[in-house]
Amino acid sequence: MEDAPTACVLVIGDEILSGRTQDTNLKYLGENLAMMGIRLKEARVIPDVPNVIVDAVNTCRALYTYVFTTGGIGPTHDDITTECIARAFGRKVFRHPDAVARLTTYYEGHPNEARLKMAEVPEGPDVELINNRITAAPGYRIGNVFVLAGVPSIARAMFEAIAPQLKKGAPVHSNHVDSSVGEGDLAAELTEIQSRYTNVSIGSYPFLRDGRPWTSIVARSTDKDAIAKALLEVAEVMLTKGGMPEMGKGR
Amino acid sequence: MEDAPTACVLVIGDEILSGRTQDTNLKYLGENLAMMGIRLKEARVIPDVPNVIVDAVNTCRALYTYVFTTGGIGPTHDDITTECIARAFGRKVFRHPDAVARLTTYYEGHPNEARLKMAEVPEGPDVELINNRITAAPGYRIGNVFVLAGVPSIARAMFEAIAPQLKKGAPVHSNHVDSSVGEGDLAAELTEIQSRYTNVSIGSYPFLRDGRPWTSIVARSTDKDAIAKALLEVAEVMLTKGGMPEMGKGR
Repeated sequence: MEDAPTACVLVIGDEILSGRTQDTNLKYLGENLAMMGIRLKEARVIPDVPNVIVDAVNTCRALYTYVFTTGGIGPTHDDITTECIARAFGRKVFRHPDAVARLTTYYEGHPNEARLKMAEVPEGPDVELINNRITAAPGYRIGNVFVLAGVPSIARAMFEAIAPQLKKGAPVHSNHVDSSVGEGDLAAELTEIQSRYTNVSIGSYPFLRDGRPWTSIVARSTDKDAIAKALLEVAEVMLTKGGMPEMGKGR
Repeated sequence: MEDAPTACVLVIGDEILSGRTQDTNLKYLGENLAMMGIRLKEARVIPDVPNVIVDAVNTCRALYTYVFTTGGIGPTHDDITTECIARAFGRKVFRHPDAVARLTTYYEGHPNEARLKMAEVPEGPDVELINNRITAAPGYRIGNVFVLAGVPSIARAMFEAIAPQLKKGAPVHSNHVDSSVGEGDLAAELTEIQSRYTNVSIGSYPFLRDGRPWTSIVARSTDKDAIAKALLEVAEVMLTKGGMPEMGKGR
């Protein structure tokens, strides 16, 4: 499991930190990276401040196999991701002919100057455009950094476009069992079960349903059989505590 | 604006990075800190890994006026936030008598050993319990770090409990004007407007409505009049581009 590729997500944008916008890209990327066996090790939400973006990109691209950024690649003055990525890599920015062609087609021959900013990417042999089937303006890869849009539907389309080229690890599977038992009533037994399933990561997540305490026990592992066995033991404990276990159902 | 208190949010939990759980605490904290004039400068989402938590806490508590952590203070084996916070501060953990009393009342005289783990906090004169009116188990403050629950309703209750004791800055106000104009058609004029309103931060956020491109222009500032004037200019530009401006309406 430790040889698996690793990743970091950088969510770039004042609108997330101000609470204006609920980020949903992290959850999407987290789910999809897990299925591909790429370990998402951290995410940072950072403001539209050049030095902060440059530092975060340089710190994270040295630490992880892949870095995925979201946000800040549009046509307006507050879209500064590309200039910051270029600075982080010590590169100049140029207007990529393929990107210009895509925008020209999409805007029926007349992309204005502002929109042509979306054709600008850092220079270098390790730079490749990322297809955007929604609104044409591409993302791009530079080295191990993938620069994606912030709009969720476009971020997803771009991730789908690059997914085939990412190195995969053993997929991390996950299942869960829920019951109307407080997690404090399961804790001792969970500790014991976790101690025997060393290749399974067992998490306990309390929630309220109809005002009553429930607990969702989640098991994650590359070993599906171990997940099933561990959760069966958890379900048995739930039964002895008076809760009906619901295995693998959505909440 | 630069003398305002600053903050960082540390979202602690494998379940966020795996994509199992959609975090909503960051948006809540971001909105409420902005209203209180506390500048949320960054957020990090980190896994349930002791060294990572310890390093993030120590890095961030040195950089910002306040650090708010969410998650990992429950009764089960995977709740490791408190031991990590104690390590970060070089403190021991002890069972806080007030917290024991609250749990004893809530669990009708019989909190089990696992639940009594939720009464453990780091030692020290700068440690104070944070009230939890939902499920009794408290959060706590240690120095400039506020340790909150991960369950959103409880995180909110804890934040409401500590809000009165936080230093306030000038509140950052925000308003927006939306229109069915693509942001690329507003970009040049926005750049010009932004250049004249130096105390207003103008952000442009594209979205799709009924398959058509719309743009939301958001203005943020401590100066409400400047926001109103800047957005009026934006609305006039939208009109000249053929879009009806919708001022200050929700999306």
